[in-house]
Amino acid sequence: MPSEELQYPTKPYSKVNRYDVREGKATYALKTIHELVNTCPILQVSFATQDSPFPTMLPMIGQMGSFARPSSDIGDVLELYLHGYVSSRLINMSRKSNNSNDAPGAETEPSGLPITVGASHIDGLVLALTPNSHSYNYRSAVLFGHAEIVTDAEEKLWTMELITNSVVRDRYRHTRLPPNNAEMQSTSILRVRIAAGSAKIRSGMPSDEKSDLEDAALLDRVWTGVVPVHYTLGDPMPGPYNKLETLPGYLDDFVRESNQDAKGIAVEAATKAMKPKLKQED
Amino acid sequence: MPSEELQYPTKPYSKVNRYDVREGKATYALKTIHELVNTCPILQVSFATQDSPFPTMLPMIGQMGSFARPSSDIGDVLELYLHGYVSSRLINMSRKSNNSNDAPGAETEPSGLPITVGASHIDGLVLALTPNSHSYNYRSAVLFGHAEIVTDAEEKLWTMELITNSVVRDRYRHTRLPPNNAEMQSTSILRVRIAAGSAKIRSGMPSDEKSDLEDAALLDRVWTGVVPVHYTLGDPMPGPYNKLETLPGYLDDFVRESNQDAKGIAVEAATKAMKPKLKQED
Repeated sequence: MPSEELQYPTKPYSKVNRYDVREGKATYALKTIHELVNTCPILQVSFATQDSPFPTMLPMIGQMGSFARPSSDIGDVLELYLHGYVSSRLINMSRKSNNSNDAPGAETEPSGLPITVGASHIDGLVLALTPNSHSYNYRSAVLFGHAEIVTDAEEKLWTMELITNSVVRDRYRHTRLPPNNAEMQSTSILRVRIAAGSAKIRSGMPSDEKSDLEDAALLDRVWTGVVPVHYTLGDPMPGPYNKLETLPGYLDDFVRESNQDAKGIAVEAATKAMKPKLKQED
Repeated sequence: MPSEELQYPTKPYSKVNRYDVREGKATYALKTIHELVNTCPILQVSFATQDSPFPTMLPMIGQMGSFARPSSDIGDVLELYLHGYVSSRLINMSRKSNNSNDAPGAETEPSGLPITVGASHIDGLVLALTPNSHSYNYRSAVLFGHAEIVTDAEEKLWTMELITNSVVRDRYRHTRLPPNNAEMQSTSILRVRIAAGSAKIRSGMPSDEKSDLEDAALLDRVWTGVVPVHYTLGDPMPGPYNKLETLPGYLDDFVRESNQDAKGIAVEAATKAMKPKLKQED
């Protein structure tokens, strides 16, 4: 790990508490966390509301990026851009949060609505000798930050391209551009300034207790190992008004390469050892 | 839809606000919501904390069930059982929430920690003529309820079987049983009494604006349709201490049938029309 690799600060609310072979390894590296967010097709976005004890939770699409420095590396300080159904309530809440800065004594609280964003990937089913030692291979990240509505037209356009191309590589320039006024108006983008983040990753084969590993009859009876899990993109299905008889090259390549990559990640996660250490017997 | 189909009450915090062809259709049916939760490999669990403006978010495994009525149907009133890393903080919070019931005037507030649980599935990439009409086919549910730690040993055992078999059908009885004392102690299960829930589902082909559909040159240039998306279980990879030379039948069947089902759902989502209605031109 190069010394210049950036880490998110460890805050009480972002600290990952436990490390063992079954539960996974914690990291605060921006690069790792940003990559997990960028490759997660659905992010869960959560924020508190005053009129309910339950946080709101919304599925959204998101990408890390920097409008000010578009050529930033994935491991740099970036903002999270979120796209999805932004309710009028959410818009109002993020405006109210901004206004609260006018209140006396509130100058240390950053503007924007405090939100938490979860990005979880499953890479495999880890099948062990006992139910308790079963696990997933997974990669899960969480980001904490302050969300504001993007109002600048140029930044909005830039984000629409960023997010469209995150769904299908190189898709944006192959569509009808630019978005018209109605489309610009109806699109709401949230920009999240990140305060902290963390990730937890579990990879490798099962790890059972010593007493079970010494039980020959048990070993003869129970299959142990990993069932890799990954997303697959199926054969593209032309819609009712599609006129193209063959699939465009960028789309064909994207589907094929996405599938190769996804399978590779799941298989690699199964074989990548995590410094196996036997758990203590009780 | 049979008249006896149960629906969750529509609360201000659970109401789904918008319906259009791109954004999806709302439902409050217990059966639909419970099925989405049960088939989601990672749930996101969120709850407020007093010492931070950001809700906590944790990935967990969960299943709907009823310990009192184990033969309940998926569309019945059920509780959500959650398994995962339950921090001492979470345990303390759910205990404190219980105690708060002793406070005067708090008798109407249910005991347990108020939590929100998100379960999202992606079924396809919906590629339209314009970036704005792009969408996902998806099925996303959210449940709101009060979480308490399961302390009864029998209920805990029952939940361990329920959750293990939700990961791999019929796996539990093929492992070393019963869990020993240390395993029982180290396993924390949350039981969530559900207060409300909702789901949003989008299926079908793209739906573009009339003006774009009349643009022949655009139609000749842009591929439109759906790329199905689904999870795949790869070939099981035996671990370092596996002794079984062939894969057990229950596991082989599970992998094959899961893959058939997952692919079928994604393809069906692409073809299942949602009462297409053209959006209004601006």
